Amino acid sequence: MTFTASSTGQPVRAVLFDVFGTVVDWRSGVAAAVRRFAAEQGLKLDAGAFADAWRSRYGPAMRRVSAGERPFVPLDVLHRENLDGVLGDLGLDPASYDPAALDELNRAWHFLPPWPDSVAGITALKRDYIVGPLSNGNTSLLLDMAKAGGLPWDLILGSDVSRAYKPAREAYLRPAAMLGLEPGQVMLAAAHEADLAAAREVGLAAAFISRPLERGPGIPGAGVAAKQWDRSASSITELAALM
Amino acid sequence: MTFTASSTGQPVRAVLFDVFGTVVDWRSGVAAAVRRFAAEQGLKLDAGAFADAWRSRYGPAMRRVSAGERPFVPLDVLHRENLDGVLGDLGLDPASYDPAALDELNRAWHFLPPWPDSVAGITALKRDYIVGPLSNGNTSLLLDMAKAGGLPWDLILGSDVSRAYKPAREAYLRPAAMLGLEPGQVMLAAAHEADLAAAREVGLAAAFISRPLERGPGIPGAGVAAKQWDRSASSITELAALM
Repeated sequence: MTFTASSTGQPVRAVLFDVFGTVVDWRSGVAAAVRRFAAEQGLKLDAGAFADAWRSRYGPAMRRVSAGERPFVPLDVLHRENLDGVLGDLGLDPASYDPAALDELNRAWHFLPPWPDSVAGITALKRDYIVGPLSNGNTSLLLDMAKAGGLPWDLILGSDVSRAYKPAREAYLRPAAMLGLEPGQVMLAAAHEADLAAAREVGLAAAFISRPLERGPGIPGAGVAAKQWDRSASSITELAALM
Repeated sequence: MTFTASSTGQPVRAVLFDVFGTVVDWRSGVAAAVRRFAAEQGLKLDAGAFADAWRSRYGPAMRRVSAGERPFVPLDVLHRENLDGVLGDLGLDPASYDPAALDELNRAWHFLPPWPDSVAGITALKRDYIVGPLSNGNTSLLLDMAKAGGLPWDLILGSDVSRAYKPAREAYLRPAAMLGLEPGQVMLAAAHEADLAAAREVGLAAAFISRPLERGPGIPGAGVAAKQWDRSASSITELAALM
């Protein structure tokens, strides 16, 4: 079975996924690692708020790369710099901690737990489609995550392959080209409409996956799409059933 | 279980495979496609000899890229040029054939059959190690091959990612770096000792896989290693058992 996307008029050959928030629960995973770090260091802090603060520095850090203000560096490097920033905002001096402990905490982003439907949904889509991440994560991060979480990707091309961060055009177009596909033969599946809009802008098909719990419980309006996409689903298993 | 390679003194984290000849039987696969092409075109030719002639142009074509005589182009492009060369050597004018038929024949390299032990051996190694190709093939070629043959790679980084052909140093070092590993944490498994020697030269561990039938039956001395490697096996399943 193949699905033809109405936005492109082409049969979809590959379904590529945004990862942080769409395939894995970054907030729970990071907060758990923060809790372990805090216990080891004897710190009292709100692990969920720490995770949110860390994540909030993600977009601005990538934008400096995309704007050409600094050369491309892998996301691991940005996450590590951002960790120092979050500690500083809490009045904690990063230099007062063992660098190995901070590196270990930084590796939390490599081992985030999949949402309950992710493995089954990707497995189902893999029968008829090429499946892979289309993430700002670097290849080694995405590889660790896949091995630990059992994500059955056909291939992993991290942002260090395209050397571009979404929503830059190349971040979408270069993976499609490396798969030997036209943009319209690739569908991005993501929980974030800005990501889908940028993908559509350069000719990819786009599927919305609702993840109302991405930023924690009780956030009004979370996980609701404002626009119409080629497909809209409340899980990756549902997306698979809709294709 | 992890295996520490004596040549590097480091525990191996990833086993990366040469593909053409080591994981798949290129000669049988290409000859079958040549036979189909010949039947469609009403040609009489020796399909095995055609496959051998096509393959013999592979090394020289890549060496022109490695020597800087031309910019990097994906292996699909080199295979296609080499196909024209083989036809020409047989007194056949490539321009007299439908380009789509020649492109289709060229895609034979995307759909080569795995050796009987490849899927089981890679599956066994995948439990304890990162597994992937380390091939001169481009990503889309290796992806088509994996989907068709059921090769359960953790990730696929084709030569179009490193933009270098083996035995150039970067062809080995860049995949290791993208995996977040030191060269000594990566083992190359290959049926060709020149490939293993180049990998060892830049610090990778090296395992020999004997493939005496790679160039067809009845070739004296085929598949016998002249040197000592970290491991030597007659199949990928045997390699998995030896680690």
